[in-house]
Amino acid sequence: MAEHTAELLATKNDKRIVFLVMDGLGDLPFGRRKRTPLEAAKTPNIDTLLPHSTTGLFDPVEPGITPGAGPGHLGLFGYDPRHHIIGRGVLEALGIDFPLEDTDVAARFNFCTLDKDRKITDRRAGRIKDDVNRRLVDMLNDKVKINGPAEVIVRSVSEHRGMVVLRGENLGGSVADTDPQTVGVEPLHAKARDDQSQLTAKMLDKFVSEAERILKDEDKANGLLLRGIDKKPPIPRINDRFALNACAVATYPMYRGIARLVGMTVLDPPKDVKDTMTVAGQVSSEYDYIFVHIKYTDKAGEDGDYDRKVSVIQDVDKHLPALLKGKPDVLVITGDHSTPAALKSHSWHPVPALLYAPETVRPDGSKSFGERACQVGGMGRLPMRHLLPIACAHALKLAKFGA
Amino acid sequence: MAEHTAELLATKNDKRIVFLVMDGLGDLPFGRRKRTPLEAAKTPNIDTLLPHSTTGLFDPVEPGITPGAGPGHLGLFGYDPRHHIIGRGVLEALGIDFPLEDTDVAARFNFCTLDKDRKITDRRAGRIKDDVNRRLVDMLNDKVKINGPAEVIVRSVSEHRGMVVLRGENLGGSVADTDPQTVGVEPLHAKARDDQSQLTAKMLDKFVSEAERILKDEDKANGLLLRGIDKKPPIPRINDRFALNACAVATYPMYRGIARLVGMTVLDPPKDVKDTMTVAGQVSSEYDYIFVHIKYTDKAGEDGDYDRKVSVIQDVDKHLPALLKGKPDVLVITGDHSTPAALKSHSWHPVPALLYAPETVRPDGSKSFGERACQVGGMGRLPMRHLLPIACAHALKLAKFGA
Repeated sequence: MAEHTAELLATKNDKRIVFLVMDGLGDLPFGRRKRTPLEAAKTPNIDTLLPHSTTGLFDPVEPGITPGAGPGHLGLFGYDPRHHIIGRGVLEALGIDFPLEDTDVAARFNFCTLDKDRKITDRRAGRIKDDVNRRLVDMLNDKVKINGPAEVIVRSVSEHRGMVVLRGENLGGSVADTDPQTVGVEPLHAKARDDQSQLTAKMLDKFVSEAERILKDEDKANGLLLRGIDKKPPIPRINDRFALNACAVATYPMYRGIARLVGMTVLDPPKDVKDTMTVAGQVSSEYDYIFVHIKYTDKAGEDGDYDRKVSVIQDVDKHLPALLKGKPDVLVITGDHSTPAALKSHSWHPVPALLYAPETVRPDGSKSFGERACQVGGMGRLPMRHLLPIACAHALKLAKFGA
Repeated sequence: MAEHTAELLATKNDKRIVFLVMDGLGDLPFGRRKRTPLEAAKTPNIDTLLPHSTTGLFDPVEPGITPGAGPGHLGLFGYDPRHHIIGRGVLEALGIDFPLEDTDVAARFNFCTLDKDRKITDRRAGRIKDDVNRRLVDMLNDKVKINGPAEVIVRSVSEHRGMVVLRGENLGGSVADTDPQTVGVEPLHAKARDDQSQLTAKMLDKFVSEAERILKDEDKANGLLLRGIDKKPPIPRINDRFALNACAVATYPMYRGIARLVGMTVLDPPKDVKDTMTVAGQVSSEYDYIFVHIKYTDKAGEDGDYDRKVSVIQDVDKHLPALLKGKPDVLVITGDHSTPAALKSHSWHPVPALLYAPETVRPDGSKSFGERACQVGGMGRLPMRHLLPIACAHALKLAKFGA
């Protein structure tokens, strides 16, 4: 059986779907404020869509489950995030815009401090600065020599964090962390979890001992701890599943990376909200699905900054007419998960969504777009992976099921 | 894949979840009354929770499915009742507080009347009185001798109903009923449904013929019909699934039994509603999940006594402050199924639920707690098995899924 019945029915036409995703959009009332940021924000442009819209609440994974960025976006793109797991190392690679190939094995690493007996004394190497990190990564790229059928590529992330890629053929990706998650012990050996990953483990061990040799005169960062070792998961392309020629308009590397992972074309990164919305309104007519990503709502939520979240939403609303210049047949406005300012983190609360489709929608009578309004909306409460097929239906892109 | 993603993410903290379960809570308007018992009941204490609550309607099994006590409670405890079937014999054992062991085979039985040709003339032996039942069960326990690798234990239930347990090793539990569900024919032979249960079937047949020998001079109760032959299902413990150190406060044996089946610690049975709520408010801090069971709402529904159901709900509300002394971080108030007074039986109508979590909830703006208010609540309409994971999320007991 297909993961979604819509896959069996997807057809091409010239209608266009836009997903405007405000990251971490869902929220809670905060302190003495009785409304969520979305409820409090003045959004006159979104409000004009309501007479041609239906709304609802969506669970990115399952009710009660807090998703990371990977599962949150896979849900938006119509995938069941429980069946497609993106490893940490892969996500790190996506997050620095590294062009990961299907056969690459990626791992994130921490620089760490080792004592003379090779025992870990600091798992984060005193949180070295970014410029030190970059200097050490340059050294590693210059000097690491591992004899074997794979190339080693090292990249800075930030502070004590980096990423390593083994590039070669026939490398398995199932290797356990070498980070023992504690101090006073030696780093673990890379341990393959299957036969195909034996060579990968051996090469990663060699890389780590080479790195220790090269870093031996460093005060703090004289060792490496590997985590989240993995290959790109075999995710079917969004075009193959839903017959969508899809593109992404996103400023942040991680979201461009996830979009690339499902086979979207990734356009040049826009600068800010205004630029994002303008670019999204000008996308070439060859694309029939446009993923538009706004990061700043999530950042405000993570920072516990209710007021900034309100103003980001208002800024998005202000520039909505620029996006609407692209004349989407279906426009969905939603988030990938909730990031309540009160909790300063992602949360499990279901995500409000609005679907505007002037030709085909059954308007639900909503008078505003907010979490509490959505709870009585026409789409009810559904798993997020249904939202894309619902949008495809409203764009008349799905054939009838059965006779 | 885990039955619920929450199982992969469950962590321990010091927050406490309480499930206050009014058995058969859901109902219908009745006669000329326009409101359900829950809507009609004056519940000032529950009402004070509403500003920090979210509500919804829950299906114990699937929409349209009327659950028994077993499936109803399994749903509440986060289990899919379609995957964990509790046999009738096992439920009967739980219902009389019989300490069933994992290797025991349990069956319920009816005393029946057999004529001289061993044809059944009354499947309920004229509904003999409880004291007759007890006398006969004592006789059976004294005199039944079956040679074999298992002990036979017989117990009274009530009227014509009893329970028999085979205690031994390597006894399969898959044997068909011997009750032909009709009169004028002989009782069926116990028929094993798999190889492992051949011995069980043989011993049950022996038990039945021994019983007929011992009961041969009885007027009415001179035979036995076996039903619901089964072993305890291999249900994973709630602590293993959700990292909850769980206990149960329940007056009635069956609910204590179901709680024990999923690995809860069962506290001494309280006397009445007041005692139940008081005990629930004083449970030791070592428990982070407390299942509190009130039977009387269901009894009133089964009796078709709308007014008594209203007054039980009001009584529970009156004693809610005693329960709140335990300072739950998350309090869920719900039922295991609906038992409409108008139908005098369990029903399929979805069950109203309120989740109070002052620190983490998205309040849904409910002005009252009732079936119709819940239908526009923030939790929407969900399968009951999601309610426990949602409560765990609100108690911050679930880690993030994916990066």
